[in-house]
Amino acid sequence: MIGLLYVRREEFRKKKKMAAPMITQFFPPLKNDLILRAARGEKVERVPVWLMRQAGRYLPEYNAYKKEHSADFFKTVQTPSMACEITLQPLRRFDLDAAIIFSDILVIPQALGMEVDIVEGKGVVFSFLLETPDDLEKLNTGTDVVRELHYVMEAITLTRHQIGGQCPLFGFSGAPWTLMKFMIDGGSHSPLPKARKWLMKYPKQSHKLLALLTSKVIDYLVAQIKAGAQIVQVFDSCAGELGPIQFNKFSLPYLKDIAYGVKDILSKENVEPVPMVVFAKDAHFAIEDLGKIGYEVVSLDWTQKPLHARRLLGAKVTAQGNLDPTFLYAPQDELKHAVKDMLEKFGTTRYIANLGHGIHKDTDPENVKVFIDAVHSYSEDMIARE
Amino acid sequence: MIGLLYVRREEFRKKKKMAAPMITQFFPPLKNDLILRAARGEKVERVPVWLMRQAGRYLPEYNAYKKEHSADFFKTVQTPSMACEITLQPLRRFDLDAAIIFSDILVIPQALGMEVDIVEGKGVVFSFLLETPDDLEKLNTGTDVVRELHYVMEAITLTRHQIGGQCPLFGFSGAPWTLMKFMIDGGSHSPLPKARKWLMKYPKQSHKLLALLTSKVIDYLVAQIKAGAQIVQVFDSCAGELGPIQFNKFSLPYLKDIAYGVKDILSKENVEPVPMVVFAKDAHFAIEDLGKIGYEVVSLDWTQKPLHARRLLGAKVTAQGNLDPTFLYAPQDELKHAVKDMLEKFGTTRYIANLGHGIHKDTDPENVKVFIDAVHSYSEDMIARE
Repeated sequence: MIGLLYVRREEFRKKKKMAAPMITQFFPPLKNDLILRAARGEKVERVPVWLMRQAGRYLPEYNAYKKEHSADFFKTVQTPSMACEITLQPLRRFDLDAAIIFSDILVIPQALGMEVDIVEGKGVVFSFLLETPDDLEKLNTGTDVVRELHYVMEAITLTRHQIGGQCPLFGFSGAPWTLMKFMIDGGSHSPLPKARKWLMKYPKQSHKLLALLTSKVIDYLVAQIKAGAQIVQVFDSCAGELGPIQFNKFSLPYLKDIAYGVKDILSKENVEPVPMVVFAKDAHFAIEDLGKIGYEVVSLDWTQKPLHARRLLGAKVTAQGNLDPTFLYAPQDELKHAVKDMLEKFGTTRYIANLGHGIHKDTDPENVKVFIDAVHSYSEDMIARE
Repeated sequence: MIGLLYVRREEFRKKKKMAAPMITQFFPPLKNDLILRAARGEKVERVPVWLMRQAGRYLPEYNAYKKEHSADFFKTVQTPSMACEITLQPLRRFDLDAAIIFSDILVIPQALGMEVDIVEGKGVVFSFLLETPDDLEKLNTGTDVVRELHYVMEAITLTRHQIGGQCPLFGFSGAPWTLMKFMIDGGSHSPLPKARKWLMKYPKQSHKLLALLTSKVIDYLVAQIKAGAQIVQVFDSCAGELGPIQFNKFSLPYLKDIAYGVKDILSKENVEPVPMVVFAKDAHFAIEDLGKIGYEVVSLDWTQKPLHARRLLGAKVTAQGNLDPTFLYAPQDELKHAVKDMLEKFGTTRYIANLGHGIHKDTDPENVKVFIDAVHSYSEDMIARE
């Protein structure tokens, strides 16, 4: 596999309006394509594994790096060299089969004009929230996310070079509903379900916002892929708050539009497509549908039963997940047992091992190593016996 | 149906150590037993309906009453006349088929010695949290909840008298896992999953705490039934945070112990049993099991698909739920349409209509009326056509 990325030079240049656009890129050859093969349903020698939020606060070197550079969270996200360094940190410790660019789903609201900070002890703080549909006018709806978020694309290109082909690099984005929820509720938990109230009270304007976000997410993911992302994941972290009726109206169609929209543009622009992963957390009611909307991989949270989810997904989609991240607090024997059980239930083909959600910041990195190594060694044994 | 409650005088007196124990109680005859019949799988003329959190902040008369009496939340809970008045308020407005005593699941942690306040803008605040298993020693494990929480039993007896047989009165309790979560995490959402970490790191001590809570919940529910509760609900509001593996270990067995424990004591003490409802919010992975642990009714949150849940529950259990509470924000036509759809899917037998979780405090009471009346009128039509 050679690391070439074909992009039509002029169109991309025009779109990005950047001083030094990346055009046809020559990346180091990929040495470990396990995760890409698993996503395509091809044979693997061992089950690939990575962790959601694998770069970040549970790693002492992350905390040290931030301190050393007196950098707050968004400074690290917005500075390509920093985002690159942080993305690489877990790869130096663990035998990971993928990296994921260090960034945040809230960069899209930022690109739309909402200032977002992370305040110690308070979490995410927005400069303003969308209270009523009139507030949609406060958004820079015409924003060019590729230009506004150029630092993400720069970070991706730099990081892919720095990884040196050790494993593929994930790009990602928040899903429209989850972004809408953050932009209205200010976070994933709020005392009143204001975003869900919008869906009920202002369905038209909700669709308008969701459609806007969808178009930005498509542009953003396409740019990430052009910049070097070898696989991308869409995080609908707040999907489970919607029941099946609302999810089918206000999330699923947009997730589908993203999958087909990205593939369509890539095809038109002669860019090689990459596997796409959808993670609709807690959307147990939608697993079957999620397997039919154009994503190669469906990522499952830890409340989904592996055998049941597999049945619902069918044979043409790869499953990703879904160890309860609190198993990383358990004694190592129990953690290994949980990994074994998970592997036996998911099987070794069309499967990418991961947690069922992001790793918690008080996790012992030693246990992350146990998790990753257990996935590899058990799955190698299983495959050898097949 | 006559409102007699048989309790062996001496045992009850001994247990309660109260000045004026309620012994054999003569309550007003019940005029509307729809919900009890639905719970037992008997024929009904219309589908019974009530709302989780139907008494409280969305009602202007509740806010006025609290203001008039300068009472904070726990003062209203702890003063039987106030709890009674607040319980009755929604019955005056709406054609409800059940009342639920105004109280809180956190009275059990309070009885165990944890001070709990509700602070404006901050929510629930505990005097201390359980940080490590050593902190279990801070709990008054020998507390007699029947004595400590006598005000709840008083409120129940008073309220059942005041309702005058208009409809049955619910008692309720938090489930052990949910109480444990609050006692460790301080609320239903916390930045770190400390309670779930306990389950992984300190399984023995977790079971010890859960067993303690279970025995208190059993005593508490039995006392509520003796005091006049005609049906009781166990709220496992945080169940969905546990995946199937942890739920089966740390919640399900205790929920089962409660159902059988309560029934067993009632039988030994010659007290007529009452229907029991279990509500394990977001535990989509456990619906089938929840139908097999001794509860007459399984309450479903709004993410569960009615037809699917029905299939999992089988024919011997009554379903309760599960309208997304945000439908009460929708235009009335849409709300009515959602009610109709829900009724058609659940059917009219072995069914109690409700929301999928508590009503939100910014709900328009007018829409509550629309919801209740729609359940009644559609279900009457459906039954007439059967």
